[in-house]
Amino acid sequence: MRTTLIVGGARSGKSRRALELAGHLPAERVFIATAERSDAEMAARIERHRRDRGPEFATVEAPIDLVEALETASGPDRVVIVDCLTLWLGNLMHYERDVDAHSAALVAFLKTAPGPVILVSNEVGTGLVPTAYLGRAFRDAQGELNQAVAAVCECVEFMVAGFPMVVKPR
Amino acid sequence: MRTTLIVGGARSGKSRRALELAGHLPAERVFIATAERSDAEMAARIERHRRDRGPEFATVEAPIDLVEALETASGPDRVVIVDCLTLWLGNLMHYERDVDAHSAALVAFLKTAPGPVILVSNEVGTGLVPTAYLGRAFRDAQGELNQAVAAVCECVEFMVAGFPMVVKPR
Amino acid sequence: MRTTLIVGGARSGKSRRALELAGHLPAERVFIATAERSDAEMAARIERHRRDRGPEFATVEAPIDLVEALETASGPDRVVIVDCLTLWLGNLMHYERDVDAHSAALVAFLKTAPGPVILVSNEVGTGLVPTAYLGRAFRDAQGELNQAVAAVCECVEFMVAGFPMVVKPR
Repeated sequence: MRTTLIVGGARSGKSRRALELAGHLPAERVFIATAERSDAEMAARIERHRRDRGPEFATVEAPIDLVEALETASGPDRVVIVDCLTLWLGNLMHYERDVDAHSAALVAFLKTAPGPVILVSNEVGTGLVPTAYLGRAFRDAQGELNQAVAAVCECVEFMVAGFPMVVKPR
Repeated sequence: MRTTLIVGGARSGKSRRALELAGHLPAERVFIATAERSDAEMAARIERHRRDRGPEFATVEAPIDLVEALETASGPDRVVIVDCLTLWLGNLMHYERDVDAHSAALVAFLKTAPGPVILVSNEVGTGLVPTAYLGRAFRDAQGELNQAVAAVCECVEFMVAGFPMVVKPR
Repeated sequence: MRTTLIVGGARSGKSRRALELAGHLPAERVFIATAERSDAEMAARIERHRRDRGPEFATVEAPIDLVEALETASGPDRVVIVDCLTLWLGNLMHYERDVDAHSAALVAFLKTAPGPVILVSNEVGTGLVPTAYLGRAFRDAQGELNQAVAAVCECVEFMVAGFPMVVKPR
């Protein structure tokens, strides 16, 4: 397994699934957290995730420069988890970065990743149409990012109630 | 089949699927409704569901005390439907009950249920992040409840457009 | 293959999947767009879709009279794509048409469609309960429409990140 995308709703077990998959690999472990410590709620979530995954993971925080972090961290003897693309996308849009360019760079990296990478992302498109323009723009961008990443990943899973459903079989 | 969780979106056919599964079992039938008759819209929904399932079901209303209702209703010759965990969770939070304790009691019951139990619950986590704190808290709690119940159920299904997709095979 | 329903979230690859399925069929191609050119955002989306599918598709716009458009377009040598039922339902509700009657007419047509029809629709029911009554009513109506159409289609797929998951196998 080289590259895996885990998609799902909030609290559907995506992060735990990523840790489980990483645990099957005989490799050093790096966790790239894309969350920004923007408020107390988010900081608490970051710390809960850090506790959950234990000390065997080196943690890198990359709210914006995900691809650079991946280039540094990824290697044949290391499994890298990216958690998650949704927060990364939110940060890119919040700080008005070029989403298409960052997305293309991520896709290019994944096509030739030197070691296993497991990416976590949210499905955000199956509620009602958001009333706010920004909500619709984010929803569209997230759907397009998920499609672009899924297209180049070797395996895609969709999480429901903690269990993976196979979307793109390895 | 002992315990089954049916997860899905609004009007995805969850209740009908629960009735269909129950219909395959040669057993007395009990329907535990967790809805509270809080307004006319909800009362109409309760009555529509009651009509849909017909007179062969004994109906118990348990907006809060679901586990006690299950302990009373469940037995080797009875199939019990719980419809649904989402309204139950909403009631627990609305009346400020201890969600973790109630959730743990439900999980403990399901591990040794004396007869078949079919539980219905909503997937609520695949829209945009709710802007309100309470919305995020509910969404997280629902996701965690679904994971906890799914972990101990023998079978989990995800409903799409009226059809079940197998999440955890029986 | 006679009739296929493709369900999924926003930007999950539904339209592209419909085009892909149509591309496998040796037939003339008709695209029924249900979008109304109500504002600039929607007009841009219509034009993007039109560009994406290329000149081999004849395009018919049917924001309300979908069943009449299907009756005209469908035939043994033609594949018809309907994109999408969600916008159609929104138009029916916005203009206060009889949703049940239109829905029943669509179902009746699909049962004896003279040629292949591929319908696209949104899953909108897996977010939080909408706070607005109209939101809940639309969500319920969309879920019921998806169920009714899925019941008579030969094949149903659920799109996740650009890939189809089989809901009802052909």
